[in-house]
Amino acid sequence: MSTQPIYNFSAGPAVLPEAVLRTAQHEMLDYNGTGFPVMAMSHRSDMFMSILHHAEQDLHQLLNIPNNYKVLFLQGGATTQFNMTAMNLAHGFKSIDAVITGNWSRLAAEQMPLLSNAKVNIAAHGGELFDYKDLPAVEDWNISKDSAFVHFAINETVNGLQYQDVPKLSDSMPPLVCDMSSEILSREFNVADYGLIYAGAQKNIGPAGVTVVIIRDDLLDRCPKNIPSVFNYRTHIEKDGMYNTPSTYPIYMSGLVFRWLQTQGGVQAIEAVNNLKAKTLYDAIDGSGGFYINPIAVSARSKMNVVFKTDSAKLDKLFVQEADLRGLRLLKGYKTVGGMRASIYNAMPLAGVEALVEFMQDFQRRYG
Amino acid sequence: MSTQPIYNFSAGPAVLPEAVLRTAQHEMLDYNGTGFPVMAMSHRSDMFMSILHHAEQDLHQLLNIPNNYKVLFLQGGATTQFNMTAMNLAHGFKSIDAVITGNWSRLAAEQMPLLSNAKVNIAAHGGELFDYKDLPAVEDWNISKDSAFVHFAINETVNGLQYQDVPKLSDSMPPLVCDMSSEILSREFNVADYGLIYAGAQKNIGPAGVTVVIIRDDLLDRCPKNIPSVFNYRTHIEKDGMYNTPSTYPIYMSGLVFRWLQTQGGVQAIEAVNNLKAKTLYDAIDGSGGFYINPIAVSARSKMNVVFKTDSAKLDKLFVQEADLRGLRLLKGYKTVGGMRASIYNAMPLAGVEALVEFMQDFQRRYG
Repeated sequence: MSTQPIYNFSAGPAVLPEAVLRTAQHEMLDYNGTGFPVMAMSHRSDMFMSILHHAEQDLHQLLNIPNNYKVLFLQGGATTQFNMTAMNLAHGFKSIDAVITGNWSRLAAEQMPLLSNAKVNIAAHGGELFDYKDLPAVEDWNISKDSAFVHFAINETVNGLQYQDVPKLSDSMPPLVCDMSSEILSREFNVADYGLIYAGAQKNIGPAGVTVVIIRDDLLDRCPKNIPSVFNYRTHIEKDGMYNTPSTYPIYMSGLVFRWLQTQGGVQAIEAVNNLKAKTLYDAIDGSGGFYINPIAVSARSKMNVVFKTDSAKLDKLFVQEADLRGLRLLKGYKTVGGMRASIYNAMPLAGVEALVEFMQDFQRRYG
Repeated sequence: MSTQPIYNFSAGPAVLPEAVLRTAQHEMLDYNGTGFPVMAMSHRSDMFMSILHHAEQDLHQLLNIPNNYKVLFLQGGATTQFNMTAMNLAHGFKSIDAVITGNWSRLAAEQMPLLSNAKVNIAAHGGELFDYKDLPAVEDWNISKDSAFVHFAINETVNGLQYQDVPKLSDSMPPLVCDMSSEILSREFNVADYGLIYAGAQKNIGPAGVTVVIIRDDLLDRCPKNIPSVFNYRTHIEKDGMYNTPSTYPIYMSGLVFRWLQTQGGVQAIEAVNNLKAKTLYDAIDGSGGFYINPIAVSARSKMNVVFKTDSAKLDKLFVQEADLRGLRLLKGYKTVGGMRASIYNAMPLAGVEALVEFMQDFQRRYG
């Protein structure tokens, strides 16, 4: 048997820290001496409530979340948040401003009006402006002051775009609502610059099946009474996250990831590693003399999802196949983009990126 | 250290078969020699698609699902299905018929109209008729032939009520939509009697975070185009369950439970055990000379959730506390009902029920 390590570059569900998986394995049948598997705990039991509250507290600590923000662990993924944000926060407003920068924010802009009376204004469209190769500057977003909120995605998983400077708006502007699915916990930012943040867990938080929502508490006053309780943020807050049965095991796993991140030194420390990982990979692309190409403007390159290709779709396919055999897995780009994509979230060690770079150089020597 | 076994009577998330947990533990870091943890697999990878399709096939086999029915593994719990059924199946209809038999079906009837133009007719109300101590007979449901569908819950987890004869309607009636969360896979029934069946997993299927939907394919023609894709059954079917990232690990665990159930002899075999478990427990209640009381009409008693109490709330509290120390856990009744509730789903062994009965007799000897 080979002991070749496997590095998982999946865009999500993505790699999880091995230490977290080992803890979960150890505790599978008996959580912390309770005699209960986490999966078999009533969600309203003291045992599970303690797991939930610790996860909340650890997330508060990691992101330095101000006290006037609430944290929820919901179901349904980021896709469900497209509609929940609109149903809850746009009631009584005529419009929502949406910034389109790639696949995810485009889908959000399409879906958001479907259960809302507010129409969606496109405040900026990175597809029309830059063919999704660059990002519209925050100063160029065309925002209506009386819109319910401004929605954007800070990192576009499919396209490999990311706002380098974390966007914020002046206090006279509507609240920012941000899809942070593929970058939350990867770098420091100021939660107070946002009205609502949501993130599907399956990239930087934990396994699929749970969605983190961080909401400024004054916005809860906007939640109308006549929407279904299961889609009402205020209901979930008032019921302490127990309005309906939450996705208990994915929440437990997310809590383990939060504690692992604390042992790594927190967000500031992981940000330094993430910067080094991204630099290592982009340097390899840029240093390949054009053999590998990243099509994104340098100032808009994602540090989480690095897209690259050669000048041949055939060669790209071979790259993905050969890389797979070397234990560098799931590097195929998204179907509409093609080429390769290396997702290098928090749990991807620098050694994984170094192994990828080494293979890239070897592949270029053989086919360049 | 005591080796006293622990029996988990939680109404959900509920006990899981130990063999399933041991398999999950064994495979936590490496699923089936792939080198991948299930939680870290891209949902679109061949590895995960294979897990999903096997789970679908095994459920088809266990429930003998006809070929004109589709299976989905969605997020959001039964509570989300209240609205999805209405949004998808009631478009263009004036009404939905709802049968109210307890907490769950009452909540469904309240929530279903909130994202639908159809109003809800109460076809029968077990609260008004029987104070939730008995069930309205199917022959007495007051159904409108032109309603979109008839919604009911076959087993009421909180109240401890269950239709003994599995309800069905004549072909001239609207399709039956059934919440089977707390009884699916516990007894044989004919899927073809239903238009749509949904079930939160955390009782008889697997861990919380996934909801099984079984839908007759002609009903997919009703799903309107102008509802959000994430709430559209047809979208999920067309995308083979991959419209958005599903709750991958809970789906994997559900698949393990399906295989475990096959090794137990399938639904017919587990039904015999479930009948014996329920008889053992109700016999103990009925044989206590009135010390323990089950308030439900004999013909409507649930074989999954057995509610009982003494004539003293103080004694009930003591019962729950002492039982807990004997390893008989989470027996406290639902807050609005009080007393005790023993949930005895598929994964509860007969030995657990026998241990409970033994304790009940001992408790009665000391306090009766």
